[in-house]
Amino acid sequence: MATDLRLREELPQITDQLLETYTECSRLNHLAHEPLPSREGVAEIIADLFEVLYPGYGRRQNLHLGNVGYYIGSLIDALHDKLTVQIARALRHELCEESPHVDCEQMAQPKAIELLRRLPAIRKVLEQDVEAAYRGDPAARSYHEIIFCYPGLEAITVYRIAHELHQLGVPFIPRMMTEWAHSRTGIDIHPGARIGPAFFIDHGTGVVIGETTEIGRNVKLYQGVTLGALSFTKGEDGSLVRGSYKRHPTLCDDVIVYANATILGGQTVIGARSIIGSNVWLTESVPPDTTVVLEKPKLRLRGSRADPEAWNYII
Amino acid sequence: MATDLRLREELPQITDQLLETYTECSRLNHLAHEPLPSREGVAEIIADLFEVLYPGYGRRQNLHLGNVGYYIGSLIDALHDKLTVQIARALRHELCEESPHVDCEQMAQPKAIELLRRLPAIRKVLEQDVEAAYRGDPAARSYHEIIFCYPGLEAITVYRIAHELHQLGVPFIPRMMTEWAHSRTGIDIHPGARIGPAFFIDHGTGVVIGETTEIGRNVKLYQGVTLGALSFTKGEDGSLVRGSYKRHPTLCDDVIVYANATILGGQTVIGARSIIGSNVWLTESVPPDTTVVLEKPKLRLRGSRADPEAWNYII
Amino acid sequence: MATDLRLREELPQITDQLLETYTECSRLNHLAHEPLPSREGVAEIIADLFEVLYPGYGRRQNLHLGNVGYYIGSLIDALHDKLTVQIARALRHELCEESPHVDCEQMAQPKAIELLRRLPAIRKVLEQDVEAAYRGDPAARSYHEIIFCYPGLEAITVYRIAHELHQLGVPFIPRMMTEWAHSRTGIDIHPGARIGPAFFIDHGTGVVIGETTEIGRNVKLYQGVTLGALSFTKGEDGSLVRGSYKRHPTLCDDVIVYANATILGGQTVIGARSIIGSNVWLTESVPPDTTVVLEKPKLRLRGSRADPEAWNYII
Amino acid sequence: MATDLRLREELPQITDQLLETYTECSRLNHLAHEPLPSREGVAEIIADLFEVLYPGYGRRQNLHLGNVGYYIGSLIDALHDKLTVQIARALRHELCEESPHVDCEQMAQPKAIELLRRLPAIRKVLEQDVEAAYRGDPAARSYHEIIFCYPGLEAITVYRIAHELHQLGVPFIPRMMTEWAHSRTGIDIHPGARIGPAFFIDHGTGVVIGETTEIGRNVKLYQGVTLGALSFTKGEDGSLVRGSYKRHPTLCDDVIVYANATILGGQTVIGARSIIGSNVWLTESVPPDTTVVLEKPKLRLRGSRADPEAWNYII
Amino acid sequence: MATDLRLREELPQITDQLLETYTECSRLNHLAHEPLPSREGVAEIIADLFEVLYPGYGRRQNLHLGNVGYYIGSLIDALHDKLTVQIARALRHELCEESPHVDCEQMAQPKAIELLRRLPAIRKVLEQDVEAAYRGDPAARSYHEIIFCYPGLEAITVYRIAHELHQLGVPFIPRMMTEWAHSRTGIDIHPGARIGPAFFIDHGTGVVIGETTEIGRNVKLYQGVTLGALSFTKGEDGSLVRGSYKRHPTLCDDVIVYANATILGGQTVIGARSIIGSNVWLTESVPPDTTVVLEKPKLRLRGSRADPEAWNYII
Amino acid sequence: MATDLRLREELPQITDQLLETYTECSRLNHLAHEPLPSREGVAEIIADLFEVLYPGYGRRQNLHLGNVGYYIGSLIDALHDKLTVQIARALRHELCEESPHVDCEQMAQPKAIELLRRLPAIRKVLEQDVEAAYRGDPAARSYHEIIFCYPGLEAITVYRIAHELHQLGVPFIPRMMTEWAHSRTGIDIHPGARIGPAFFIDHGTGVVIGETTEIGRNVKLYQGVTLGALSFTKGEDGSLVRGSYKRHPTLCDDVIVYANATILGGQTVIGARSIIGSNVWLTESVPPDTTVVLEKPKLRLRGSRADPEAWNYII
Repeated sequence: MATDLRLREELPQITDQLLETYTECSRLNHLAHEPLPSREGVAEIIADLFEVLYPGYGRRQNLHLGNVGYYIGSLIDALHDKLTVQIARALRHELCEESPHVDCEQMAQPKAIELLRRLPAIRKVLEQDVEAAYRGDPAARSYHEIIFCYPGLEAITVYRIAHELHQLGVPFIPRMMTEWAHSRTGIDIHPGARIGPAFFIDHGTGVVIGETTEIGRNVKLYQGVTLGALSFTKGEDGSLVRGSYKRHPTLCDDVIVYANATILGGQTVIGARSIIGSNVWLTESVPPDTTVVLEKPKLRLRGSRADPEAWNYII
Repeated sequence: MATDLRLREELPQITDQLLETYTECSRLNHLAHEPLPSREGVAEIIADLFEVLYPGYGRRQNLHLGNVGYYIGSLIDALHDKLTVQIARALRHELCEESPHVDCEQMAQPKAIELLRRLPAIRKVLEQDVEAAYRGDPAARSYHEIIFCYPGLEAITVYRIAHELHQLGVPFIPRMMTEWAHSRTGIDIHPGARIGPAFFIDHGTGVVIGETTEIGRNVKLYQGVTLGALSFTKGEDGSLVRGSYKRHPTLCDDVIVYANATILGGQTVIGARSIIGSNVWLTESVPPDTTVVLEKPKLRLRGSRADPEAWNYII
Repeated sequence: MATDLRLREELPQITDQLLETYTECSRLNHLAHEPLPSREGVAEIIADLFEVLYPGYGRRQNLHLGNVGYYIGSLIDALHDKLTVQIARALRHELCEESPHVDCEQMAQPKAIELLRRLPAIRKVLEQDVEAAYRGDPAARSYHEIIFCYPGLEAITVYRIAHELHQLGVPFIPRMMTEWAHSRTGIDIHPGARIGPAFFIDHGTGVVIGETTEIGRNVKLYQGVTLGALSFTKGEDGSLVRGSYKRHPTLCDDVIVYANATILGGQTVIGARSIIGSNVWLTESVPPDTTVVLEKPKLRLRGSRADPEAWNYII
Repeated sequence: MATDLRLREELPQITDQLLETYTECSRLNHLAHEPLPSREGVAEIIADLFEVLYPGYGRRQNLHLGNVGYYIGSLIDALHDKLTVQIARALRHELCEESPHVDCEQMAQPKAIELLRRLPAIRKVLEQDVEAAYRGDPAARSYHEIIFCYPGLEAITVYRIAHELHQLGVPFIPRMMTEWAHSRTGIDIHPGARIGPAFFIDHGTGVVIGETTEIGRNVKLYQGVTLGALSFTKGEDGSLVRGSYKRHPTLCDDVIVYANATILGGQTVIGARSIIGSNVWLTESVPPDTTVVLEKPKLRLRGSRADPEAWNYII
Repeated sequence: MATDLRLREELPQITDQLLETYTECSRLNHLAHEPLPSREGVAEIIADLFEVLYPGYGRRQNLHLGNVGYYIGSLIDALHDKLTVQIARALRHELCEESPHVDCEQMAQPKAIELLRRLPAIRKVLEQDVEAAYRGDPAARSYHEIIFCYPGLEAITVYRIAHELHQLGVPFIPRMMTEWAHSRTGIDIHPGARIGPAFFIDHGTGVVIGETTEIGRNVKLYQGVTLGALSFTKGEDGSLVRGSYKRHPTLCDDVIVYANATILGGQTVIGARSIIGSNVWLTESVPPDTTVVLEKPKLRLRGSRADPEAWNYII
Repeated sequence: MATDLRLREELPQITDQLLETYTECSRLNHLAHEPLPSREGVAEIIADLFEVLYPGYGRRQNLHLGNVGYYIGSLIDALHDKLTVQIARALRHELCEESPHVDCEQMAQPKAIELLRRLPAIRKVLEQDVEAAYRGDPAARSYHEIIFCYPGLEAITVYRIAHELHQLGVPFIPRMMTEWAHSRTGIDIHPGARIGPAFFIDHGTGVVIGETTEIGRNVKLYQGVTLGALSFTKGEDGSLVRGSYKRHPTLCDDVIVYANATILGGQTVIGARSIIGSNVWLTESVPPDTTVVLEKPKLRLRGSRADPEAWNYII
């Protein structure tokens, strides 16, 4: 390159200044001999679990009953190792200050095995989720299409895995998993939420489901729905109380929430079979079998957009 | 790893339990000798088509008039094969129960070639889309910036390809394509929608355009706009009627819809040159040359946020 | 493949027709000997910068004080080259018509070095952003979790880099960078916006921050917030005036904007410490220490959804 | 690049001239719709077979009795497909002129399966080969070292696989396999040779074993040994008679041949337990239990190499 | 890892000691802003040239007359760039001391184009080489087998390319090419040698053909043949005279040289149609139509190898 | 694939039969929880060491004095880890039966560091080797050419590394390294040999240097030279005595050995400054300053090869 070599000579000095900030702003560093869980490692685990949960839909083709056992056996064996490694890293992190001599791999392995043990049950729930999507969307032509193309199912699958790890007390990794799904689908489900079977999210972009949300069975959400907190509890020193006190709403069985509706608050309960209309903003409970819609908003209709004054005004 | 070998001995049993669910919950499996279309295969086709539609902007650099013919010729030849393979897989799937002996590759090839034939026409429409983006966004400094950086154009390009395949009766793949774009842009356009030239979506995250939407020429949408269904038709047995009866709205030429507006219903027609304001929620038709805005909402303004009671109340 | 060879013979003709459109619709091509900046090249630069800004969190593990200097020194050296190449390509593009003989690499190198020089300062601002996220979200268990899992921080980091390049007059690349982040996070921040330290975006999908937005310190936004333009200025010929005249709002220090609120207009100023509630639509200024919420919307509650007429009506 | 664009304009003409040679010198082309076996495909098959034959030594680590079954089952399943594809391509090639409508995959599959069936027997022979290497080389410290580091064993393993395919009448691929090994080890064994168990080649570079060579059990060769043809039979038209008439030597059980010895001719039989010394050149048979060495060659020893005349003379 | 962190602290010191040797033993470094030709770059060029010379046999399958033109055109275009870059690097190196301001790319481009121009002629010679191999080896079943599996042809092809570059005065790269082939085939042909058409090397491991060797048409060599120098000329100061004075032998048309024969000396001429037997060591010329074989060596045959004294003696 | 599904059903049975051989012929397996050193891991270490020993010649280009320190520091740090891992695996293997509870990583780390410590000294010896090659080959145009293209130097470099590890008592890995070089160069140097500085091997294919060979300074070998054992010592039970008793020859300073010469025996000493001619076969010592050549062999020259009887006879 036709670059100026003298300018280049400043680079070591820039490096040194950066290195100084590694001491000053040390919160942005992780400079230690023990590695953190790795993003790639976690993504690989998710990919392997999709192979196990939806065999034949993923990277390995030509699976049939004669060979699927070998493939799944291999994956389960590999998942045991990969999960143990990443969970151990996460635990080491959480525990290292208090108890530096804990054998984290020994703690991690039973959690890894427990997740694997729960996979058959997860599959049974996912089958209900797929069935719900098929029942709920007239554009769906087949189960294949749902498994292959529906971002809602992708986000729910990752949530169901992450939720199990969250239940098992694994730090850090459940959130990495749901953020992986958030990035791909625009659907942000906290791994701490509790969600019943036959759950369906259509389109999904912008959906947010908070940490202490509870959702019954057979619930359907559309894009842009927020199930959020109304306010945060602060301690005496003014800092936030962390943890899982109930601050997000509860949706009972068979509820439908249309696009861009917002439901807030830990005491807010949407009764069974209720329907919340598009754009509704709710901070209070609703009894069962209720339909809530925005009162028909008053619209202002005006004449030709050729009128420049109007044009500048309204948008 | 310092793991417990006895714990590990449970893994074959877990594998067996999973294999049992492959018989029980068989809807989540595709265990058959004929492979499904592959996600990677479809993504590769999209990438190749972008190379053909926007030469010089993509993975191959240093294209000029002296060598572009070779490159495009090679790509078209490869696309013929790749499209034929993936379309044949999709057809085999759709048809296999009724007519297992159909030669799907023979059915697929003319569809593949027809898509390629339509590429020059698609390019002509895309040029109008790019021009519309340039005209419509003062932040756009050049055509290059639009082609390189605008997610709206990416989503529209994929839609235009997918729509042609949808028209040609290719199952499954059009939706895989638009979901690929949805994942990257947050814009969810069903391949069945009909959209005229000079279409522009700005920012785009959260846009949903349903299967039977019709959009004229020179229409502009902002982020978060939903063009959705008002209700679904059910058959006598209570299950959804599937297929493409008109259930999403129609936008005539030169319409603008601002951010987060929602327009629902198959009978809803937005007349030409009308403007729908931000956050508007519409389920009825609007005549041409009309501007629709929310009535200025009544806002409650209150005092200092130092007031803790207020703070806990409003959010 | 069992394809028809005669059908295949049409492919060269299709290629020729496409090549014709490269002359006709030349705006979609970049057929020239000088390459554009490359998407992969820019993505690699972002990835390298994340390694430098958050050492130990990214692709390189086992960094510690004994080896981090080598790693960062290597990266800075490589970044110097990669930035110079890509910036030179962008400049060549912008300048080529007017001044074809400019040595673009010579112009690019000081800009590349200036960005590197600013990295320590960027790290100091990012530390405040991380701290703000920790203070603002009760679900955050640790700084690690924020750096690893929060899409808001990812988008802000990319914005802070892109903004410096934008300030340095680098065309094209800043927008490529923020669109890279937009694709992954659903958060669309224009590189021209000016944003103070301790900025936090929670969840984030659907956030849009326009080119001339100004944001003070310690501001918090939730998902779906739009900071947009109210109207565009047109020149005498009716075409848009391009450039950075103020058309997006100003948020003073310590402002909070809740989910899906929309604030529009270059003259709109949200006073310090004010709170804008969820779904609010604002086109006018608000004094300091003010809380703005939607007046409690009138909801229509109706009976059992078993009533089919109701069901068809409301959604 | 600072290249001359006018020079570049010659490239299409060069391409055209090359294309003309594709008609003229058509023996160097394979321009047809049916692909040849692929080098990469064959190399992958060899790699998979090494995993099966020497589990734990290759690319997959952490194999143990609890997971090896899954791994091997997966590999055997994949090998069935890969072998069938490549053998079918090879057969199509051999047969296409005479019988264009043969279903080559149908012919290929039983051959693929037969090779897999023979793998357990091959393993038993290979174990004898490894044992022979250990017995025969004082530098070998362990079986591990032999399996991991001895090129002789690598070449023999590939030969044993290739020989089975050769016996099964698979064209083309056996030779591709042994040439793959030749390239890595310098040992060139024709797949048609017949070689008994407990065969050991030390160092190996330059060893050539011709097509009709026969070797008994427990034979040992050193580097540079040629087992070749003395002359070729020609037909009445002067062209070579092709095929496997016996033209290479026979080595009976327990023979040792030292470095760079040459043994030629289809009638040459080296009797059991005989030893052929280094550099010996043999075209006649040798009875059992015989030792053949070069008569101590007369060496000319001369004085100081300072004598320039001498120096120029001898080398 | 359970490693000792204090031991690790020595690493920076080791690095510093190494860096000191970069000043002391600077011949082993290339620390300069201008890169050398790259091994990978040269290997890629060879691979591309094989695609051009033997279309259909290499990495790209499914080539036929309908698409080969695109593929070859693309390759020629890419080869132009790749060759120009690597040749320019090589020239810069050779020339930089004497004439630092030469524009090496400008010098490199005509050489690159000239090599491409000669490819059709090279193909014509290679066709004769393939024909010679077929005529000369009864084990060869088809032309396909020769092109795919014969290391001799691979080495000759690379030599023929490298020789053209050598003729064009390109430094450094021709030798990198022939060493690439040497590593894969064990055949070491200096790019300066002059070799006529219809050249065949069977098996080939260990063949060495020196810089000033001349070989007529229709010559055949077997493995282990050396065509070498008898002595080197030294200058007055005792150092070697470098360059291409004739120091390797000449083989006239239709000569055959059998395995492991050694022919040395710049004045040694092997007359047309002569045959040199296996293991022969020749430093003098041979008239045409002559057969040279080792006098039948006297072999010592002894009794049973059970005699331990004999065993220790002979090997 | 058009394969027969019933044939396929045999695959699980084949798998089972293979698994049985894993118990029977267990010497070919490594089925254990502790992995062996990995071929890829060792190859990576060699590649990294080449980067350190010959900076600027390898995969990383654009190294200069301003950035080489970062690069080398990074590599040394990484090599510390990689070497420790692989050496620990090798040690675990050697030691596991006798002392299963040894901490192998703790034993491995000092060996890894010791190798790194010796790198500056290795570079100093390699510089003499490069100088010797330049002095010894008139075809060498520059040092660059030797470092880049001479397989002899590649093999010697790997030997010098492997020899240090061998001295440090590292099992297994030194031989993996020299076999890696053997595969690429055809030169087989046992890591146990002792070789002085300024060593040069020209062409090299087929060279074998045994475990207990000793070579002085400034020695030159040509292709095909064997420095081998004359016989092996057996123990009372008839099995080979393993280990490093002297069984290969000694070459004093300034010796030259020409192509294909064979020198055998642990008592054989070639005196300083002696020259051994091509094809010579030596099992006895030679005094200093001696030239040994084959007595001019008697050649039989015969008439025209048109004589078919002659033709059949001699080859």
